[in-house]
Amino acid sequence: MTKKIVVLPGDGIGPEIVAEAVKILEAFRQEGLDVSLEYGLIGGAAYDETGTPLPDETLQMSKQADAILLGAVGGYKWESLDISVRPEKGLLGIRSELNLFANLRPAILYPQLAEASTLKADVVAGLDLMIVRELTGGIYFGQPRGIRTLENGEKQGFNTLVYRESEINRIGKVAFDIASKRQGRVCSVDKANVLESTELWRETMTTLSESYPDIELSHMYVDNAAMQLVRAPKQFDVMVTTNMFGDILSDCASMLTGSIGMLPSASLDENSKGMYEPIHGSAPDIAGQNIANPLATILSAAMMLRYTLDEAAMADRIEKAVSKVLDDGLRTADIYSEGMTKVSTSEMGDAVLAAL
Amino acid sequence: MTKKIVVLPGDGIGPEIVAEAVKILEAFRQEGLDVSLEYGLIGGAAYDETGTPLPDETLQMSKQADAILLGAVGGYKWESLDISVRPEKGLLGIRSELNLFANLRPAILYPQLAEASTLKADVVAGLDLMIVRELTGGIYFGQPRGIRTLENGEKQGFNTLVYRESEINRIGKVAFDIASKRQGRVCSVDKANVLESTELWRETMTTLSESYPDIELSHMYVDNAAMQLVRAPKQFDVMVTTNMFGDILSDCASMLTGSIGMLPSASLDENSKGMYEPIHGSAPDIAGQNIANPLATILSAAMMLRYTLDEAAMADRIEKAVSKVLDDGLRTADIYSEGMTKVSTSEMGDAVLAAL
Ligand SMILES: CC(C)[C@H](C(=O)O)[C@@H](O)C(=O)O
Ligand SMILES: CC(C)[C@H](C(=O)O)[C@@H](O)C(=O)O
Repeated sequence: MTKKIVVLPGDGIGPEIVAEAVKILEAFRQEGLDVSLEYGLIGGAAYDETGTPLPDETLQMSKQADAILLGAVGGYKWESLDISVRPEKGLLGIRSELNLFANLRPAILYPQLAEASTLKADVVAGLDLMIVRELTGGIYFGQPRGIRTLENGEKQGFNTLVYRESEINRIGKVAFDIASKRQGRVCSVDKANVLESTELWRETMTTLSESYPDIELSHMYVDNAAMQLVRAPKQFDVMVTTNMFGDILSDCASMLTGSIGMLPSASLDENSKGMYEPIHGSAPDIAGQNIANPLATILSAAMMLRYTLDEAAMADRIEKAVSKVLDDGLRTADIYSEGMTKVSTSEMGDAVLAAL
Repeated sequence: MTKKIVVLPGDGIGPEIVAEAVKILEAFRQEGLDVSLEYGLIGGAAYDETGTPLPDETLQMSKQADAILLGAVGGYKWESLDISVRPEKGLLGIRSELNLFANLRPAILYPQLAEASTLKADVVAGLDLMIVRELTGGIYFGQPRGIRTLENGEKQGFNTLVYRESEINRIGKVAFDIASKRQGRVCSVDKANVLESTELWRETMTTLSESYPDIELSHMYVDNAAMQLVRAPKQFDVMVTTNMFGDILSDCASMLTGSIGMLPSASLDENSKGMYEPIHGSAPDIAGQNIANPLATILSAAMMLRYTLDEAAMADRIEKAVSKVLDDGLRTADIYSEGMTKVSTSEMGDAVLAAL
């Protein structure tokens, strides 16, 4: 049966980079990949047209899709709007509505780009870490939340960090399953010495690990994890953590690679339906100039082929093609260095296509 | 009037490193510094002797003190105890009972130890960043909290992140005041795009900054802050943030310097009463061997002289003496490198004393 892909270009550089990933998907379609592509509005683009960052039409379309390819959302233009309409709400809304609880964020150092890391070569050479972030629970969604006025007239802001065993188990399973196809090591990150919610997290992970005798589970406090990422990031295989800690640690980890324009991500539900997007933002300052790096989005399409469409061979071909264009010295501006060949967004996309 | 200093050596290497800082304070006492020193139990050491990590005697003594010098608390030995008696509770307890809401954590790269950083030299050379962490509020102390059993029988853990304007204002003032003696720039870190509690944080900081026309205030989301610390840490002068974010970011920042055995911290109340301690832990694996690095504790004593005892000149002398022993090539094992002179804990303390 034809698999449905919804494409949500979003804001800033979103449309340009998504276009390059779509070129690749279209090429595979010519080869027989049985997918259909449909477009929707999200983020500031949706807000400007419909008054909401996540129009109902987009949500319905996405619910019926097998996979979603997202560019990026947000930008200066919408920053000053009330928080309830900020484009990010569109993002949080779609994650939650589609139950995309498992966020996979690889942090990989491309040997061709090793120089770009701010860390010393021996510390990061060969870095290949997978962060599994819980994405639809925790303090991002916990109730009660808000800002109230106290009796003495001052305001108080409050949020609730909450996790139940079933939520912890399902994200734990994703991490253990991924680790079983990698080096077999999971590091669960919490703050169990202070927060009861993450004390339950630690206990639940420990119990779950009994069903995975071949996986080595370790635990680390989040402050130590942030230190260890800087000190010796190669000690990690798979990290699994809460929504908030995952937000912080995955951004830190991706920056270690020095090639944040290269990193894809997947957000999956329980049936491997997924939303795929680059981890970088909408970069409004360079939008529309055909200079953004499309590789993170192209690699997100590869993750889609691997995790939702069950086309691991096609995913491999994309990843090898990306490696090849890097070997050939092609670089967009963000990853350019002396002696390389500077190319535009579309030139980079075409080069990957040619190298497939 | 004689100022009262309470010394809490704590666990692991705590007693050894504190002894070296006390040597320095005693030397200043010979010179006329009007202080008295009294000792108390805390952490695992207190638990073993009294059944609680924070005995009432220690608390009362500390309440009456002007300043507290703490070594470190905790260790493997107490890890398996129920969380409510873990040594860290002793630490959280004393912070809260004494109202030590302002945690100052400098992240300084010592030029003599620049090699030890995992970051490239040009990224961290000259790094001198001050993180101001709120220490007695936020999710560390918010109510309600706990683990409950839901109707369907599964457990749910919950914590509350809560800040009121007055709490945000008082930590903001500390950050602005410190910045006014430095480069005049404060970066306030929050997650205002998702968490209402930190939306109030951002608004309150913005309003407060109107009273500090000479200070430049900027705002950054915590995930971006974690990235920027790795990408370009020298962009920051003073960072101010919540208890939880400060825990994570300050550990990350201190690791950037590569000399975590060198970094002191201060936790202050509204009247400059303070608790001073190294940021590193109790390192039970090397306890009792006279090899731990006492410099972070000695530099904590310098912060005490500066912030509580109003003896900036003495603080300067300690800091210069530490710089001198490093220039002379003296190194404890943790910061040792080829060609330097390896010294013990007490030899390092004596060398600083001689260099005062
Ligand atoms: C934009 C923001 C709400 C979002 C998050 O915090 O989840 C982003 O930082 C991310 O990590 O995808
Ligand atoms: C031990 C722990 C409770 C403590 C904290 O999280 O505050 C420590 O990590 C610190 O930063 O001083």
